[in-house]
Parts: sequence; C-alpha cells; structure tokens
Amino acid sequence: MDPLPLLQDLIRCPSVTPADAGAMAVLEAALVPLGFTCTRLRFGEIENLFARRGTEAPHLCFAGHTDVVPPGDAAGWNTDPFGAEVRDGTVYGRGAVDMKGGIAAWIAAVASLPRDLPGSLSLLITGDEEGPATDGTVRVLEWMEANGQIPDMCIVGEPTSKAVLGDTIKIGRRGSMNVSIALHGVQGHSAYPQRADNPIHRLVRVLHQLTAEPLDAGSEWFEPSTLQVTSFDVGNPATNVIPPVARARMNIRFNDLHSSAKLTARIRDLLEAEGARYELDVSCSGESFLTQPGDFVSALQSATRQVTGVEPALDTGGGTSDARFIARYCPVAELGAVGTTMHKANESTPVEELRALSRLYATVIAALLPARTAA
Amino acid sequence: MDPLPLLQDLIRCPSVTPADAGAMAVLEAALVPLGFTCTRLRFGEIENLFARRGTEAPHLCFAGHTDVVPPGDAAGWNTDPFGAEVRDGTVYGRGAVDMKGGIAAWIAAVASLPRDLPGSLSLLITGDEEGPATDGTVRVLEWMEANGQIPDMCIVGEPTSKAVLGDTIKIGRRGSMNVSIALHGVQGHSAYPQRADNPIHRLVRVLHQLTAEPLDAGSEWFEPSTLQVTSFDVGNPATNVIPPVARARMNIRFNDLHSSAKLTARIRDLLEAEGARYELDVSCSGESFLTQPGDFVSALQSATRQVTGVEPALDTGGGTSDARFIARYCPVAELGAVGTTMHKANESTPVEELRALSRLYATVIAALLPARTAA
Repeated sequence: MDPLPLLQDLIRCPSVTPADAGAMAVLEAALVPLGFTCTRLRFGEIENLFARRGTEAPHLCFAGHTDVVPPGDAAGWNTDPFGAEVRDGTVYGRGAVDMKGGIAAWIAAVASLPRDLPGSLSLLITGDEEGPATDGTVRVLEWMEANGQIPDMCIVGEPTSKAVLGDTIKIGRRGSMNVSIALHGVQGHSAYPQRADNPIHRLVRVLHQLTAEPLDAGSEWFEPSTLQVTSFDVGNPATNVIPPVARARMNIRFNDLHSSAKLTARIRDLLEAEGARYELDVSCSGESFLTQPGDFVSALQSATRQVTGVEPALDTGGGTSDARFIARYCPVAELGAVGTTMHKANESTPVEELRALSRLYATVIAALLPARTAA
Repeated sequence: MDPLPLLQDLIRCPSVTPADAGAMAVLEAALVPLGFTCTRLRFGEIENLFARRGTEAPHLCFAGHTDVVPPGDAAGWNTDPFGAEVRDGTVYGRGAVDMKGGIAAWIAAVASLPRDLPGSLSLLITGDEEGPATDGTVRVLEWMEANGQIPDMCIVGEPTSKAVLGDTIKIGRRGSMNVSIALHGVQGHSAYPQRADNPIHRLVRVLHQLTAEPLDAGSEWFEPSTLQVTSFDVGNPATNVIPPVARARMNIRFNDLHSSAKLTARIRDLLEAEGARYELDVSCSGESFLTQPGDFVSALQSATRQVTGVEPALDTGGGTSDARFIARYCPVAELGAVGTTMHKANESTPVEELRALSRLYATVIAALLPARTAA
C-alpha cells in the first residue's frame, strides 16, 4: 500500500488543534479494513482514537497525533497548506512531516505485512499534541490502563530525523520545569539597612547558589541539565528605599539524574535557609525519561540501518513530545521523518522519503513481532 | 539680643527652595549694624550671602541656609507655616529648627559678645541646601577661596540635637553614592543556554560578590558602611527566553575607609571580570568626611557641657548636609537645635531652647576666639 493517498486525505482535513476536521474518520476508514477495532475516545473537545488488532503479547503500539499547528502566514506558502499538492515528487501541506506522514507510513506498513503477525498491534492517535496535551495522550493512556490495553512497547512517529531519514532515534527527553519565586523582606531606608531586610540580597544569594555550579555534567545518554534564571524583577524606582519583595523566574531542563520533586526540594531548602517569607510556584511540563538501550532499541537500530543504510544516533535532545507520558507505562522510542520543515511554511516531505519511512516501519514491525514473520 | 524676633522675621519669608523671599535682606539688616561686610552672591536662580567682620586669624565661619522645604499639607498645620506664631512659649513655622533658628541664634550670640573679639567672624548663608545644592555652598566656597576668605574652622548650624539641646555634635558624615549597572549578554532559548549568555547569572555573581561580606566593620568614628541593592530589573515575560540585558541599582553609604573612586573601581573590576559588555553609571552626592576630634571639637564639647549640662556625643550618622562641601577646605562640625520636627508639619522650637542655643553659640565663639574675650 502506498502511504501517499492516505497522507493526502489526512492533510486535506484542516485539523488545527483542537479541531478534528474529519481526520479520525479517515484513519478509521483505513484501519477497519485492516482488521483493527477502533474506539473513538472524546475527552473535552478533543477527538482521540485507539485502534487494536489482536489481543496477544507482545503488544506493539504506534503513537501519534493528527492535530497540526496553524499554517501561519498564508503568504509564506507556495501551495494550499491543506491542499496536499505534489510538486516535483514532494507532497506539501501542514502535517506532512509533523506528523500525518508518520501515521500514513505506519498504516501502509501494516497493510504491507501479513495479517497473521504474532502478538498484536495498536495505534494511539490523539488530536491534542500541539495544544495543552491534557485531553489527549494522557487520558487515552488512562483509558488503556483501565481497559487492559497497555502495550509492551511503543513507537512514537514524531519527525526525529535531522538530515536524512533514520539518522536519529530518540530514546528519552529532558524534563522541563518553570519556577517562580517571590521573596519577602522588610522595606526600609537604604541608609539604615539594619532596620530593614533586603530581599534582593537574599534572592541574589539563593540564585547564586543555584547558578554558581552546573547541576550536573551530563549522564550516559543526556547532555548536562540546565538552569536558567529568565527574569529578576523588583521595579523599585527609589534609590533610597530597600524594597519589600524581590521576584525571579527560572527554567530548568533536567536529565535523568533529577526529578522535578528533588529540584523543587533543593530550591525550597535554599529559601528556607534564608528564614524569610516566600512564595514558590513550580510548574513541571514533563519529567525526564529514558528508555534504556537494549533489545527494543537495538531492533529499531538494526531495522533503520537495514532500510536506510544510515547508522542511527540515539538521542535525548530537543523539546518535549507525548513520549514523556507513554514512558510512564512502557518502553518508548521516537522514530520518524526528517523534521526540517515542521511548523514552518511549505511543510513537506519527498514522496520517496515517505515510502522509505513506510518500509522502515514495516521492517521495525517485523523485527519486533518476529516469530511467524520470520518463518 | 533676643533671637526670637529675628527668627520670626526669617520664618515670615516663605523661602522655599529656590525662593529667597526676602530672607537674605533680613540677614543683611541684622548683620550690617553688627559690623559685618555683606556680599550677596547670586548663582543661577539662588541668592547666597557671605558676611565677614574683621580680617584676622583665627577666622571662624558659621554656615547655614535660609531655604526651607515646602510646608506640605496645610491641613496638617495648626498655625500658618510662615506665620511664626508663638503659642505656649513655642514658636511655630517652617524653618524654625531647619535652620532659620540656628542662624538667628548665632547672630544674636554675636550681638551679645564684645565687638573687639580676636580673630574674625563670617557667615556663609545659602538658599540652596534643601534643593540640588549646586548653586549654593559649593559655589560660595569657590568664591571664598578665590577671594582669600577660606576660614580656619566652621560650624554648621543644622539641628543635630536628638532629644535635648546639645546632646549631639556631628563631626563627620558618611558618603553616599548611587550606582546603576546594565550588563549585556546574548539572548537565546533557555533550553539551549550554550548558544546564549545569560546576563542575569553574571549580574547575580557580581552582586553576590558585593553583598556577601560587609564592606567594613566600621571605623573609629563611623558605623560600618552599607551597600544596598535597591532594584534588579529584567522584565522578561517569556519563560523560554534568556534575556539580552539585566539591570541593577545600588545605594552605598560609606565611611572614611572608602572613597567613591575606590568603590567605583572595585565594581568596575568585578564587571570587567565577567568579560561582558556593560554600562556603569555612578553618581556620588558626597564623599565621606571626618573632622578628627582635637582642640576644635573639644572646645565645642566643653561649651556645650557648660551651657546645657549635657555631655554631647560625637556622631557621624544621618544623611548629608552642606558640611560635606566645607570639609574640603577646613575643619567643620555641626551643632544645633533639637531636630525632631524638621521637615514635618508644625515645625517648631521652644523659645527658651532657641535662647539657650544662642547662649551656647556665644560660649562656643568665646571659646574658639578666646584671647581678649577671656581677658
């Protein structure tokens, strides 16, 4: 099966988050003939789809999203962003690589394989990956857990390739948290600091302790964690007044040596040591996770090498994806198209690359569900 | 001579800086009959007066100002702020203690003493002490130097007494400087700090070095110097952006162990060590000064003890006065009324206290110009 017509059908659904615009129906129409049982899961205003064929282990899941970011300035596009036009062997449209292309390639891969694969296959497709990600993958996983549908392993079809197809497999991501601090002192005249308590000095001391040394030197699979103070605000116009409060904000990207809870505790300890009143607000958009290289990741590497001739690097860089939610349940890795045009005008993928991705996925499936395929 | 009528005449001139409102003319009318040669010195919009009697050494100068701060909310006053009304033995009005009272007391003291005192007496009176202080004492001193009129010693009639007349003589003041820093970095994404240069981290390090330890532990006559960061401002609303610039402001009150030049050099060294572009703006409103206790100060102490029965403390605390300018030329000390009502509504001085201050000043003059007086 050629993935191109399915990708074109998907691109022609203008499914900008949170709109579904018919995208899930396109998938159901493709999956039901392949023997999948489709369950539509609507949470809030978000359409999600869980599709499964077979019930046996090993259970291999493919996770992806049909929602796309807005096309942006129409003048930047040479084609209709939702037209799926093919020019010179390349298909153009929002979602071509991020990541309707990955979904189409996976379904075409399944179609190209025998029906009687061992184990079972499923797809976890959400319409809320580019948005707040609250009514999407997180809630589908809760439903899957409640219904005995947690897979043994999962591949996320994000466009992980950097320059050529297959050059990068993501096996983890850093965590990210935003921290906001308000530290209170006692206002007073700057000539008589003994009658006041300068909250700027205290906050400078806290931030110096947090920034003087790196959080770590990196770990086996991760770059060093980073802590960046992004703002420090007092807004005191008077030169002769010690202000009552000082505020700062930080963004922390942390590897597998940390957790948001431990980092929060460290910041809280430093604030407590000041003995002053404070407010600490922490918002963690994702813990770090790592799928330890082993049989699962090795199988992905071998398949990639075999199909593309490229040696895939194992990577944990970049921003977040829904893989951070799936990692709580089972081993997960991300492998997909070349992402250079994602979120940009003229998002596109060469048709031959789309077909190569589909062959790659077929080889991956065959490697991970091997018994009767190999026979 | 009773100082009260002269004080009332002065209070009735509403000489809110920079207005003279006739105050200098009142002084000339009092001083000429006492044998003083009066020279009016107008600089910019400011009236100043230099008056001298005699030409011999020792030359004792009295320095003061006729300008006053605004009365403020009229509803806070029980009398006309420029009415000089006496109620229950207390005279009310703006400038009663800061410092028309001191000027009236000094002139009445001179009037009560013989004309043939040894040495010579002068008065340096400005109308720009409560304002920017640029066209006042500084420029009169320049004129005095150019005209061979620099005194051997000077008494400033600021209201230095805290609770009872004579309890405090000021023999120095701390210096004060305001520092403004803008430290530049390289803006970037907070997830990739290696491609940016966070100016907040650099500024935190600089400020930590400046605030972690006290500037000093005080000196023989001074409290410890203080350095207070009064604001730290970035104003970056984005959690995922490292900002391009961070700004901070400081106020430093420094004793005789420092100078503004040395403190500026230290801050500049710390900024240079960061290797980043910066702007440093320093504004020094006065260097620290100290008149070392010795014969001059001892004479003031003895006279005070003799007239008031109070043991005067030698003090270097509080804000700035024009004494900081005079200290560049000759020994200077400040001795005057009880200052509790200065700058407030219902500024006032008990008439008996005003008369006691005048007796105190007469005793001071007699002690400092002793020869024929004692005879």
